[in-house]
This record gives sequence, C-alpha cells and structure tokens, in this order.
Amino acid sequence: MKNLNTKIIYRFLGITAVLNGLFMFIAFPFSYFHEETEKWGILQAGIITILVGALLYFFNKPKNTSIQKKEGYLIVTLGWLTLSITGMLPYLLSGAIPNITNAFFETISGYSTTGSSILTDIESMPKGILFWRSATHWIGGMGIIVLTIAILPLLGIGGMQLFMAEAPGPSTDKLHPRITDTAKRLYFIYVVLTLVEFLLLKVAGMTWFDAINHAMSTVSTGGFSTKNTSMAYYNHLPFVQYIVIFFMLVAGTNFVLTYFALKGKIQKVFQSEEFKYYLFGIIGISAVITVIILFFQDPNLQTSIHHPAIFGKNESAIRHALFQVTSVVTTTGFVSADFTMWSFFATGIFFALFFSGGSAGSTSGGIKVMRHIVMLKNSFLEFKKALHPNAIIPVRYDGRAVSHTIVFNIISFFIIYMLIFIMASVTLTLLGLDFISALGAAASSLGNIGPAIGSVSPVDNFAHLSSTAKWFCSFLMLIGRLELFTVLILFTPFFWRKN
Amino acid sequence: MKNLNTKIIYRFLGITAVLNGLFMFIAFPFSYFHEETEKWGILQAGIITILVGALLYFFNKPKNTSIQKKEGYLIVTLGWLTLSITGMLPYLLSGAIPNITNAFFETISGYSTTGSSILTDIESMPKGILFWRSATHWIGGMGIIVLTIAILPLLGIGGMQLFMAEAPGPSTDKLHPRITDTAKRLYFIYVVLTLVEFLLLKVAGMTWFDAINHAMSTVSTGGFSTKNTSMAYYNHLPFVQYIVIFFMLVAGTNFVLTYFALKGKIQKVFQSEEFKYYLFGIIGISAVITVIILFFQDPNLQTSIHHPAIFGKNESAIRHALFQVTSVVTTTGFVSADFTMWSFFATGIFFALFFSGGSAGSTSGGIKVMRHIVMLKNSFLEFKKALHPNAIIPVRYDGRAVSHTIVFNIISFFIIYMLIFIMASVTLTLLGLDFISALGAAASSLGNIGPAIGSVSPVDNFAHLSSTAKWFCSFLMLIGRLELFTVLILFTPFFWRKN
Repeated sequence: MKNLNTKIIYRFLGITAVLNGLFMFIAFPFSYFHEETEKWGILQAGIITILVGALLYFFNKPKNTSIQKKEGYLIVTLGWLTLSITGMLPYLLSGAIPNITNAFFETISGYSTTGSSILTDIESMPKGILFWRSATHWIGGMGIIVLTIAILPLLGIGGMQLFMAEAPGPSTDKLHPRITDTAKRLYFIYVVLTLVEFLLLKVAGMTWFDAINHAMSTVSTGGFSTKNTSMAYYNHLPFVQYIVIFFMLVAGTNFVLTYFALKGKIQKVFQSEEFKYYLFGIIGISAVITVIILFFQDPNLQTSIHHPAIFGKNESAIRHALFQVTSVVTTTGFVSADFTMWSFFATGIFFALFFSGGSAGSTSGGIKVMRHIVMLKNSFLEFKKALHPNAIIPVRYDGRAVSHTIVFNIISFFIIYMLIFIMASVTLTLLGLDFISALGAAASSLGNIGPAIGSVSPVDNFAHLSSTAKWFCSFLMLIGRLELFTVLILFTPFFWRKN
Repeated sequence: MKNLNTKIIYRFLGITAVLNGLFMFIAFPFSYFHEETEKWGILQAGIITILVGALLYFFNKPKNTSIQKKEGYLIVTLGWLTLSITGMLPYLLSGAIPNITNAFFETISGYSTTGSSILTDIESMPKGILFWRSATHWIGGMGIIVLTIAILPLLGIGGMQLFMAEAPGPSTDKLHPRITDTAKRLYFIYVVLTLVEFLLLKVAGMTWFDAINHAMSTVSTGGFSTKNTSMAYYNHLPFVQYIVIFFMLVAGTNFVLTYFALKGKIQKVFQSEEFKYYLFGIIGISAVITVIILFFQDPNLQTSIHHPAIFGKNESAIRHALFQVTSVVTTTGFVSADFTMWSFFATGIFFALFFSGGSAGSTSGGIKVMRHIVMLKNSFLEFKKALHPNAIIPVRYDGRAVSHTIVFNIISFFIIYMLIFIMASVTLTLLGLDFISALGAAASSLGNIGPAIGSVSPVDNFAHLSSTAKWFCSFLMLIGRLELFTVLILFTPFFWRKN
C-alpha cells in the first residue's frame, strides 16, 4: 500500500459540497415566495457551499483514481462532516439558528436522519428553513444508500456483507462499476417513494408544504416535522398517520427488497428472513402496546398530547401503537403520542426497541434486525455447543451458512455498540443529565431515533442540554449513523501508519 | 451417550442437603444461647434437611459413577435449588420469615451471594436466624469454588477455561481426581480468610457475633449484614470498613492467585492481567468517585446515612468511594453510603459497574473482568481487521493466544447476558416497578450485587416488590450466579433429547 490519495478524497468532498449547495437553491424559492427575510441567508449559504465545493473539486485532480479502504473510510466520515458544516450555513446566515452549537446539532441530526431538535417553536420558523431542515434528512438518506451499497460491504463492517447477497454489488476489493447501476435503481426507488408519499399525504389532508416536508422526513427515516407536536398534530386525520406508518415501514425495509417488490417479485420479499422478523416483530409488539393502551394505561401518568378517537377508542389505540412502534423500530422518530405516558412497561418496551433498528440496506439506523437475527441464532447455537463442543454447526441466514468471520463481525459490532452506549450514558450524566434522560439521549442519538425518555421524551426537545452535551450527542449521531467503525477507526493509531 | 445417570444426580443432591443441614446445626447454638423461641424451628429444619439428604443418598446407589456433561449441568442447577429449598426451612419453621415467597427470595439471595433482602428490620431478627442468613452466603461461596474449578472449565462455559490455565485442574472430558486437591487447597484459603477477617473485625471494634457474620458475608462476596444500615452502621469505626474493603478485594480476586500469594509467589499475582485491570480499575474509579464526593456532590440529593468525618472530610470521601466501588465491582453489595445520592454522574458510573463483576475464579458474580478484557481486546482487533481483513491476529491474554472458540464463548456469553438484562428490565416494569428501579433490580439480581438504584437503592430493600417480581428476581439471581448457560440449557429441547 501507498500513501493516502488525498486528492481523490478532496475531490469527493467537493462533489458532496456542490450537491449540498444545489439543494440549498431548492430551499430558496420556499423562502422567496413566502417573502421571508431569511431568503438571502439561504441563497448566500448555497453560493458559498457551491463555491467551496467547486474549488475543492477543481484544485484536486488526482492522477490515480483508485480508492483503497483508507480513502473509503475518510471519504465517508469527512463527507458527512462536509455536509454538516456547509449544511448549517443556511441556519447561521439566515439568523434562524444563530448559535453555532445549536445549528450544528440540528444539521447533523438532519443528515444522520436522527430527528432530534433544539427548536422549541418549530412552527414559528421560516418556511425556507423548515424545508432545508427536512432536506438535510433527505440528503442524509441518499448518502446512506451509497454508503450501504457501495462502501460498507467493501469494508466488511459489522456483517454488512450479508444483506447484499441478493443485490448486484461489489465482489472485488475495489469499487466496482456495477454498483453505479444498483445505486441508480435504488435512488430511483427513493425518489419515487418520496413523490408517492407526498401526493398521498396531500390527498389525505396535509398542506402541500407539510406534505413534501413529511415525505422527505419519512422516506429517510429522519423524523423532523414542521409541527411543534410532530405527527400528533394530525391526530384528527387518521389516514395521514396510516400513510406515514406505511412509508416508515417501507423506508425501514431493505431497498433491494423494495426494488424486487416493485418488479412484482413479491415472493422474494417474503423469502427474506430479516423482512419477516421485522414485519411480524412490529405487528406483534404493536399488539402488546395496543393492549397496554386499552387496558393497562397508568392513570397516574399524564400526557399533554390529545388523541381524538375519531373511529373509536380501539382504532385509536391500534393506530398509536403501530405508529410509535414503527417509528422507533425504523428509527424515524415521528411522534403521534407520548409513549412514555402509557405505563412503565410500555416505556420499558420502547427503550428496548431503541436498540432494534430497521432492516440492513434501508435508511434506518441502529443495530438493525439482521444483526439481531444472527446474534440470536448464534446464541442458541452456543447452547448446543455447550453440550457438543466438537460439533460444527454454522449459523444459517436466508438459507445459507454464514461464515464465522461475519458472525464475529456482527457480535463485535454489538459489543462495541453497547460499550459506547454505556460510556455515553455515563458521560451524559457527567454533562448534567439525570440518569434516565442520559440513558435515553445516548440510546436515541446512537440509534438515530430522535425522541427518547426522561427530559428528552417525545414531548420535549434537546434545547435544554448544555453545549458540551449537544456536541457530544452530535458525535454519537455521527458514529451511530456511520456504523461505528467507519468513524472510530480514524481514532486508532494504526490507521495513520504507513504500510 | 446413554441415558441420564439420575442415581448419581440424586446422590449428589443428597450430599448437598446433608451438608446444608449440618450448617443449620451450627446456627442452632446461636439461637439456643440467646434463649430465642426460634431455636426449635432451626433444629427441626436441620433434622428434616439431613434426613431428606440421607434418604436421597442411601436410596440412590449408582452402578456407574461417571458423570457426563448433562449430569454436570443438572447437578449444578438442582444443587443450588436443593440448597435454597432446604435452606429456607429455618426461616419458615422458626416463623422468622413466615411467607414462602419472602423466605425463598432471602434464601436464594443468600446462596447466590447476592445479598438483596426482603427484611425491613434486620436488627429485630433472632441471632440464630441472622447467623443462618450469613451462613447461606458462606455455603454459596463454597459452592461457587467447586463450580468454577470443577464444573465450568469442564463445560467450557463463557470462556471459563481461561482463568484455569495456571491452576491444576481437569484436562479430560470427565471429572478428574486432581481437582479434589485443588478444591481442598482453595477451601483451606476460604476458611483461613474468613477466620482472619473475623478476628480482625473483632479487634477493630465489632462484637463477636457481628464479626463472624460480616466475615462470612465478605469472603463469599455476599453482602448480608446484621445491621439495618449495613456497613454504614460502622461509619464511626473507619478501620472496620478498611478491613472489609481489603477482604472484599481479596474475595473478588481469583482464589488461585490468592493461593500463590500465600505461598509467597507475589510476582505470579502481578503477572495476571485480570488482577492488574481489576485492582487498578477499582483504584482509578474510586479516585473519580472521591473527586465527585469532595467537589461535585449534587446539593439537591439528600441521603439518610450520616458520615461522621473522624479523620477529616478527605479520608471519609476516599474511604466511602473505595468501599462502594469495591463493594459493587466484587458484587458484594455492602453499603457504607448511599451512592445514588452523590450525583447523577456517580449513579451512572455505579450502574455501569453493575456490569463489571470481579475476577474469574473468585466468589464474585457478574460478567467478570477477564471477559471484559478479552472482549475489549477483540473489539480493538476488529478495527485492525477492518483495515487488514486477511491478517490473522489472535487475542492475547496473559501472554498466550486465546483460541477463537474461547473468544466466541466469551462474547456470546456477554450478548446473552445483555439480552437477559434487557428482557428482565422490561419484565420488571410489567411487574410494577418504575423504569429506573426495573433496570437496577435486573442488573443487580443478575450480577448478584444486592443494592441497586431507584426504589431498590442502597437504603431501600426488596420487600415492597410484588410476589411475582420477587420470584422473578430469585430466578435472575440463580441464572446470574450459575453463569447463565448452566441453568438456561435445561430449558432447551435438545438437552432432553436422547442421543
């Protein structure tokens, strides 16, 4: 191996910035037509971002265009940072979020598709800024698609090779041209899903503006809303909530499966073990939550969110259970009701779900269902091995034996995830959060969920955290989004060693 | 393999019961000389237990004395249950704890060396019963020594082979006669440690009775005290607390190392990686806690425990920090101060320590330091492998390469541990505990610690839990104590299959 190919890294970052700047130009008209004073700030941000990106691009003509692993890691992490640093310019230059800590938190919460907010009055924000805020989710979701199909399987992180078994993808050690085709197909699905949800939400009663924003937030499993009470604002429009539930479910599904479904190969979808666990898991847990809402709600807990029971109490319970379970499992983080107010048991279940994550190959964050399946199967086999130590019984996934290395990748991923969660919780108590809020903020930031428990519950926000705590949560969102290794490896000494 | 050798299982259970009954006879004089009405209940319990044990022994003469793995698993789990079922007779027959749920909880908390209690006024209990209560810890500790040196390495559970590398032990598939020698040596150390601590505590100011009880509770890393405020009762006797700190430290150390230390081979002790992490970990974390106590105590938190600062504020802070960190890490669970009242940060640290555990080969419970070391090293190697996927770099422990199988055992153990912890927390919220108490009770029961957080904090007890919650915690204590697999494997269908 040779030295780092820094030119190609800068060139990639340049392209990223230019694309980001172009999206700011899309946000501009929303501000312009609403005659908001913030429009010029957004435009300035777009111009600066594109200029910086173009300079980075044109002054870095690499002689060698091959990308090795180290460059891959750097492009991913620095790419997300480039997005976040340029992406906070619209907030800062327009004066909508003047504080740099808050602006950075809101931006990385956007690109990491987390959806935690420091805004205390969302509805008072300018339209152009609200659009930009949702757009950061959507751009982040696009980034995740590239990451999961092109970069992670190549790097072999946390067993991400597994979910690509069905997809046309890279098989050699270098970025393969075939992945460009895959990427194009999946981007097409991403755009189509967004447009279809947008239109359906409009038909179901949202305004044009709210519909496009919520569509972008759903498909990216982000969770930013244009309303102070998030999706609870639409408690009088059950169909809006059902549409969002459906699209959260799809967004949390492996995009390769969605591609097969759109091609009419439904049987392929139901052959996927992960999809079955994911779907029936959500349905099963929602059933338990429905029962809690209907019969075991703690009368001592009071919520500020009102649920009009338009189609009766039962429908309302089923809907809110499905909505909140899907929202947390897919790591979207929309709020239709304050789940921490149902009962301690419900809070316990939701806290456990903070560690679920949706499907691999989707825009959802967290540990992800595929990893849980492999870990559970492996744990079960460990019992067998305790009786028959010499038997060689591989973990089977989707009908194939999973190599020992991949199982090892996956469980190591889990251990590092839990380790970071525990250290992060303790750190957040040091930064002034009470114990339960610290657990919630750590799990939610790392899993890119959004709302948590305690003082960062679904009806609260992250505004009251100290600056240090906000930067720390921003870091958690970044490493959680980038599957831990991608970022953390940059902090190891051997990464920077020449070899 | 053939059918289960049930005769030998019953025979072992018979021996266990007889030994347990003999210890009840030791408790009897304590009650007799204090002229307590409960003495006859204790005597009856002893007679019944010995009779049942003797019958089990004499009516089960096995033709074949060889013990296979399945018999090993059954002997361990049923052995602990035999201890607990016969061990609660003194409480029930004397009327000291008339309720069977409470009696079973207190008994299994004793044998599992947990130290959680349902007693609300310990000091009002008869002396004979208090002695019996501490004796259950001490017997449980003896059981753990057999378990760790004879059974677990044979069964290959959770990497417990590792710590035995230095000790003379079993090398074939059957119980080896050589382990009898090892067991004798380690029992000798166990008895000597108890006697020395007993005498030192007496010299430092305890009564004879309290000294013997606290010595038995310390050496077994149990945590039952004869005082309502646990070791905080001795806040006016700093030397008593220092003695207990020292013996908790020793009890949480691999007994094989203590054996070497007593033989004068101190260099062997400091060659042990686990011991170094264990010792310097406790010292380092205690230093952090000392700083919190001295400078960052939360003024909003109030404790009911008074700390007279006999040697000044600094000494008191150092002592309580050392005491509580050692107590939690070694899973003893004695209380010198209410650590949940220092600050949220301190609570966070202690909660993380609930997952530490002491050294493998000691009487402490929990995950244990050895496993953490292997997992951390393996996690670090995963980063290297992410860059160099074809490099074969084994985890090294105590200077030797650890086999892939053992690393796998260890991380699977951790995953199952965390899985049980999460499911147990959620179950406890269902059984009526608030979220934070549920997390605390689950972690503390599973780790055999004793005090937890929330409504089961160091100044509370487990009396207020529902019956179901008490049985559930009893189960957690049992599986935690027996390294999970030993108990859980009995619930798998393939265990009962003939093959």
